[in-house]
Amino acid sequence: MKTINVGLIGYGFMGRAHSNAFHKANHFFDLEYRPVLKAICARDAAKAQAFASQWGFESVETDWRQLVRRDDIDLIDIASPNDTHRDIALAAAKAGKMILCEKPLARDGIEAATMVRAVEKAGVPTMVYYNYRRIPAVTLAKQLIDDGRLGRIFHYRAKFLQDWTISKDLPQGGASLWRLDVKVAGSGVTGDLLAHCIDTAIWLNGSLDQVNAMTETFVKQRKHNLTGKVEKVGIDDACAFLARFKNGSLATFESTRYARGHKALYTFEINGENASLFWDLHDLHRLQMFDHRDEGRLRGWRSIHVTDGDHPYMKQWWVPGLQIGFEHSFVHQVADFLQALARKERPRPDFRDALETQLVCDAVLKSARSGRWTKVPAPK
Amino acid sequence: MKTINVGLIGYGFMGRAHSNAFHKANHFFDLEYRPVLKAICARDAAKAQAFASQWGFESVETDWRQLVRRDDIDLIDIASPNDTHRDIALAAAKAGKMILCEKPLARDGIEAATMVRAVEKAGVPTMVYYNYRRIPAVTLAKQLIDDGRLGRIFHYRAKFLQDWTISKDLPQGGASLWRLDVKVAGSGVTGDLLAHCIDTAIWLNGSLDQVNAMTETFVKQRKHNLTGKVEKVGIDDACAFLARFKNGSLATFESTRYARGHKALYTFEINGENASLFWDLHDLHRLQMFDHRDEGRLRGWRSIHVTDGDHPYMKQWWVPGLQIGFEHSFVHQVADFLQALARKERPRPDFRDALETQLVCDAVLKSARSGRWTKVPAPK
Amino acid sequence: MKTINVGLIGYGFMGRAHSNAFHKANHFFDLEYRPVLKAICARDAAKAQAFASQWGFESVETDWRQLVRRDDIDLIDIASPNDTHRDIALAAAKAGKMILCEKPLARDGIEAATMVRAVEKAGVPTMVYYNYRRIPAVTLAKQLIDDGRLGRIFHYRAKFLQDWTISKDLPQGGASLWRLDVKVAGSGVTGDLLAHCIDTAIWLNGSLDQVNAMTETFVKQRKHNLTGKVEKVGIDDACAFLARFKNGSLATFESTRYARGHKALYTFEINGENASLFWDLHDLHRLQMFDHRDEGRLRGWRSIHVTDGDHPYMKQWWVPGLQIGFEHSFVHQVADFLQALARKERPRPDFRDALETQLVCDAVLKSARSGRWTKVPAPK
Amino acid sequence: MKTINVGLIGYGFMGRAHSNAFHKANHFFDLEYRPVLKAICARDAAKAQAFASQWGFESVETDWRQLVRRDDIDLIDIASPNDTHRDIALAAAKAGKMILCEKPLARDGIEAATMVRAVEKAGVPTMVYYNYRRIPAVTLAKQLIDDGRLGRIFHYRAKFLQDWTISKDLPQGGASLWRLDVKVAGSGVTGDLLAHCIDTAIWLNGSLDQVNAMTETFVKQRKHNLTGKVEKVGIDDACAFLARFKNGSLATFESTRYARGHKALYTFEINGENASLFWDLHDLHRLQMFDHRDEGRLRGWRSIHVTDGDHPYMKQWWVPGLQIGFEHSFVHQVADFLQALARKERPRPDFRDALETQLVCDAVLKSARSGRWTKVPAPK
Repeated sequence: MKTINVGLIGYGFMGRAHSNAFHKANHFFDLEYRPVLKAICARDAAKAQAFASQWGFESVETDWRQLVRRDDIDLIDIASPNDTHRDIALAAAKAGKMILCEKPLARDGIEAATMVRAVEKAGVPTMVYYNYRRIPAVTLAKQLIDDGRLGRIFHYRAKFLQDWTISKDLPQGGASLWRLDVKVAGSGVTGDLLAHCIDTAIWLNGSLDQVNAMTETFVKQRKHNLTGKVEKVGIDDACAFLARFKNGSLATFESTRYARGHKALYTFEINGENASLFWDLHDLHRLQMFDHRDEGRLRGWRSIHVTDGDHPYMKQWWVPGLQIGFEHSFVHQVADFLQALARKERPRPDFRDALETQLVCDAVLKSARSGRWTKVPAPK
Repeated sequence: MKTINVGLIGYGFMGRAHSNAFHKANHFFDLEYRPVLKAICARDAAKAQAFASQWGFESVETDWRQLVRRDDIDLIDIASPNDTHRDIALAAAKAGKMILCEKPLARDGIEAATMVRAVEKAGVPTMVYYNYRRIPAVTLAKQLIDDGRLGRIFHYRAKFLQDWTISKDLPQGGASLWRLDVKVAGSGVTGDLLAHCIDTAIWLNGSLDQVNAMTETFVKQRKHNLTGKVEKVGIDDACAFLARFKNGSLATFESTRYARGHKALYTFEINGENASLFWDLHDLHRLQMFDHRDEGRLRGWRSIHVTDGDHPYMKQWWVPGLQIGFEHSFVHQVADFLQALARKERPRPDFRDALETQLVCDAVLKSARSGRWTKVPAPK
Repeated sequence: MKTINVGLIGYGFMGRAHSNAFHKANHFFDLEYRPVLKAICARDAAKAQAFASQWGFESVETDWRQLVRRDDIDLIDIASPNDTHRDIALAAAKAGKMILCEKPLARDGIEAATMVRAVEKAGVPTMVYYNYRRIPAVTLAKQLIDDGRLGRIFHYRAKFLQDWTISKDLPQGGASLWRLDVKVAGSGVTGDLLAHCIDTAIWLNGSLDQVNAMTETFVKQRKHNLTGKVEKVGIDDACAFLARFKNGSLATFESTRYARGHKALYTFEINGENASLFWDLHDLHRLQMFDHRDEGRLRGWRSIHVTDGDHPYMKQWWVPGLQIGFEHSFVHQVADFLQALARKERPRPDFRDALETQLVCDAVLKSARSGRWTKVPAPK
Repeated sequence: MKTINVGLIGYGFMGRAHSNAFHKANHFFDLEYRPVLKAICARDAAKAQAFASQWGFESVETDWRQLVRRDDIDLIDIASPNDTHRDIALAAAKAGKMILCEKPLARDGIEAATMVRAVEKAGVPTMVYYNYRRIPAVTLAKQLIDDGRLGRIFHYRAKFLQDWTISKDLPQGGASLWRLDVKVAGSGVTGDLLAHCIDTAIWLNGSLDQVNAMTETFVKQRKHNLTGKVEKVGIDDACAFLARFKNGSLATFESTRYARGHKALYTFEINGENASLFWDLHDLHRLQMFDHRDEGRLRGWRSIHVTDGDHPYMKQWWVPGLQIGFEHSFVHQVADFLQALARKERPRPDFRDALETQLVCDAVLKSARSGRWTKVPAPK
């Protein structure tokens, strides 16, 4: 068993999700490599130490530059806010570390392209946590499409709806609310939520050709937690866009944090010539499928409970009928990364894949400003 | 076009449902016979007249004996309370009339057997409104079972849940509440609701061999609307029973009027060796099917929207995707009756079929009293 | 009881739906007026006669101009293809007849505006069959919005998905396929399906301000049934658009006939500050509601089975829990029309309301051609 | 942080579930105690060693008697087949160890009573893995009932349906199929699946008074994996029973391994005077609730996505909308056990609680043999 020493930056929601994945990967998957939780890095030493105790990290750093310099670290995992991704990645690449990065890769395509150049120059393996690819039901969708079960795809439809920022009294910025601060996050729902939808869409149905978007900021000003002042809100609260894929499919995408009743409702539906698929993050263990080749009078949407041994990833877990949850997508991602290393394959999605998603996000925001159809530029 | 002159007895919920069916059958089905609404019979002359005006009946009677005597009446439709069924049927049979009767056929098996003897002696066509057989999704279930799609049937499960009698202040007896008066109704949920479940079960899966039941009357006394006094409640508020079919299937049946949240939730589920079916009156236009012969990783419960032209009865109605409702089951029943007449076939379910259901109800109530497994007697 | 003599033009799907509604309205609603099926008009005399026999029309016409001329006709019901609506309506208005018209009102806004001018000049009552307003669950949604239960509305989302034209072998034009012939229909899914979505949206959430659309014709050529030749397909097979309402809500609309697995899936979702609503034509008897004012830990989407006596229209029908279906929306529309007459109120939606929907459709198609945001012009 | 040294017996499905729980409990919960995986015990030394490596156990034993003797072991976790529970527990109690035991506690009530006497005499803390109590949606149901939200409970309905033993070619006995071998398992679905339903039922609605059951063994003979011979099948393949709770509620319970389409469909529904609840293991993160006190026209079943911070256990996990799964119920159970130790409270359900469930199982099987209502004996 070869070990990989992990240095994790960030102990928030994603720091916990990644730590849990590093712990569980080898319990449930037979892997040549085993991650070792070597160091946790965060600015607040006391909190970092508490996190290290709870999660079993061997050491603590308070400056990521110091972490990157350490010789006993093989892999840097970036789980800190978006505005830190680029600099950490550039330094880590220079230091020859493998890099895992929470999504979105960066605040915009320019940052992302810089990062891609750096890691490709350094030749280090990378991966970005677009974890929804690893939900078994989503992976099953991918298999069905790749097998040609859907035939020509006419329509793609994705939504990511939340409702947690409706209150005008919610402030922006700071520890748990940096996603509302455009300087830190880069954008609002586009980079946070639509980036997931776009990554999945490209993976399932190929590249997007052009987009036509609208955005809205429903609450124009919010108190900023760091300055204490009421400041203009710079992020997009909601974004919807029309799109055409390169393969000719039509698409609609929508995301908002103002949809009462939806906590994290990421759904997609794909309509093909022969079959259609539907998936919903709120019931992530199910894939809905309509197969036109079923006998006519018996056609109907099938609710596939994706918990059988012949479903992707599932033979590693429990027995048929027993659900896994959100966190398992990270375990799968880490396991897949370790397997790719063992097989000397390119881990996916890597920084280059994530750049493509970033360029779509940029085109979406540009289109929203111009009110025009906008071509998605090719990654260079 | 041959006409059949109908004399309808009763103008309540079922009087309306039958009248509507007589009106619509020939609009939507191509039939040799056409029912003519010749007379409505009810004790209250003014109300009967109003009903006649609203529904287009040509005449009014206030005494069913007079109606039965009329030469211009070909068919008696019994939509009055259960305690009137036997006497009307005996007189109608004697007068050589065709007879349609609302379910249950009678208050008990003894009454029902008397009625069967009378109509069979008279040789008149009969039918009992176990209308749920004619919901397209239920008829589709019947076709699938008869085609052998399910294989050996291991389990049958039926429920009919309501919640409208929970209040202790609800009185019993009289116009709209005769179903709570045991003298009029014969029994509570067993004859009213389980009779539907039993009729469907026998139709789909053959005769029942033995039953083991429990009943409960949650509210022991209620004011009686006719006497004005608080009287003991004689009906069963709830009834559940275990059963074995003659073909070896195991069954559970349950009905209650004390299940909060359910207005008229009649459901059945059938588990066969190869496939399972589920149906629910609250979404009566859908049939759920699980087919084990589907490809393993793609198995799932299919929600079949039973609204296509190749579904039972549906090519007579609208276009795919557009629902019909409760009332249409009566239209189908009348249309099927008229077609059976034209083809000189036995209409189903007729009085003899309904007697079998009545005998199961009797066995259920007997078992509840004794606490023992009880054989269902064979109809004679 | 005052009678209204109806002359119906067209005996197709909608001719049947309207005839059924005229028959049933007075059985289930207490109305001052009663429609009399005086004449059916269609070019094929034999078929018209057969329809008259089946549905009880007193007479037959083969030329609508002759029908409009008849003194014994009070009301013209237009259920013929879209390209006939304008001329019939102009003649009927001139003859002083009341006019009911199947949707869309016309092939485009210019035709529609002409019709509005004519009927307003003549002062005749009109109504357009945007029947989905009269589904009880949709009417309940309207009540809740008008009561202010949702608060500020952030998002409106509507789709109308079908799958019946995917086959390339399907011809266009002629009796049952005129909806694929742009000369007869005016447009494809925009006028046929999105018109419904737009009518409901305006009714529920007010006027649309601007739209940004894309359309696609997946099958570019089809055999034409009337010419026998392969001809270019002029209709839009699919259309999606972004929109902003005048009240500031953001919207997405989409319709297609290439969505495998959906027969007539009209859905809408509305996200308000305090509550959200969802409705689905495939389960038209249900309204989903999420109410943020419910106790926190018990919040969830409620599936309201809209079949109770206190639900719109439902006390006229059966008992709680028993569904009505598609056809009942037409019965309600006819009943509402007759009640508006009795109360000397404006029936809704009338030609003027339908003109607004037509202008949105025009703006959608114009935007799809230009690729730009397009203002919805105000009706004149 | 105090440590507790765990000796685990059994490395099958449940050995993995328990190991995972011991690992995760302290990552997600703040606890005074921390379990240490001191030893894994199983007869096959090589497999035990492999399991130890994968899961991080410090040592291996191949004889549970030796494990129980070790001074460095504080807690024995019994995850081996049912026929080993009693002897291990008696020895562990004698050695003064804390004991966690997989359900069912024993093969029958006699074994269970012996175990209870032993642990109570020894005064050691115990707990039985009736893990479904710790699914957040089920715990929420418990809170609602204890808060009196349901009022008087009229009906309780539970099912546990599977379909994995339908094939006649499936053998019985041995490593993964001991659940089909009556000598090892004690019974079939009654002890395996209904035991879960009974534990939950007693927890939610109090003790059962009497039961009336039927059982069936659909496949009468199967090859035995250990003897290689075709032998009589001694277990119950299916079991259904009627019951009355001591509080007067009526109940139906059913379990089978012959219900096509259901992998592990444990559902319960509870109908109270004021509200009803429904839960389903296949969507374990949801609780359905109908509240009669909602405004009349807006009543409906709410689908509560039990993933918010104010839901039981959920503030320890991710963010609203993100599901946890099956395995988390074990993590909660271990965390609750450790908290009970810290608070010097009685862990629940302990051996005494599990004895009550065992006595109900015994009464069910006895009733099935006699065909009579059978009183549930009081635990001594």
